[in-house]
Amino acid sequence: MSRIVVEVMPKPEILDPLGKAINNALPDFGFDAFTDVRQGKRFELTVDGDITDAVLAQAKEAAEKVFANTVVENVINVYVADDQAGVA
Amino acid sequence: MSRIVVEVMPKPEILDPLGKAINNALPDFGFDAFTDVRQGKRFELTVDGDITDAVLAQAKEAAEKVFANTVVENVINVYVADDQAGVA
Repeated sequence: MSRIVVEVMPKPEILDPLGKAINNALPDFGFDAFTDVRQGKRFELTVDGDITDAVLAQAKEAAEKVFANTVVENVINVYVADDQAGVA
Repeated sequence: MSRIVVEVMPKPEILDPLGKAINNALPDFGFDAFTDVRQGKRFELTVDGDITDAVLAQAKEAAEKVFANTVVENVINVYVADDQAGVA
């Protein structure tokens, strides 16, 4: 099994109240290094077998048509996941 | 300004109804290459000035304490964003 990652973020000009709320709360937890927080979405698509160019193209098209609401969001990245990507 | 990306995904053993619903809808859009979809969160943290080890450590700690609900989610990755990361 292989995986493709799709990353979607709100467009820069779009207000992100959730991100603002999180950013305002961070100092209460002692985190003061950040001036802004924006929250988007990260999808993992599982593929049985190899990820061919056609499969990756399908993921990019699905990203634009299904995973992102392109009126208010941008598809930031679509890439084949490196299965060794450990937890930070 | 620099940015740190925090990626959070539901733990593998946790049911992801949203991901399941998306996966079930994909064939209706003509996308048949994927056997599963899981949806997580992607945060962008803005930092004024350079990202020092201390700032990155703060982001990792905030990831575990604020951005992820570690009962049901894993912090997948915390990294300094490459500002040239273009749209896919």
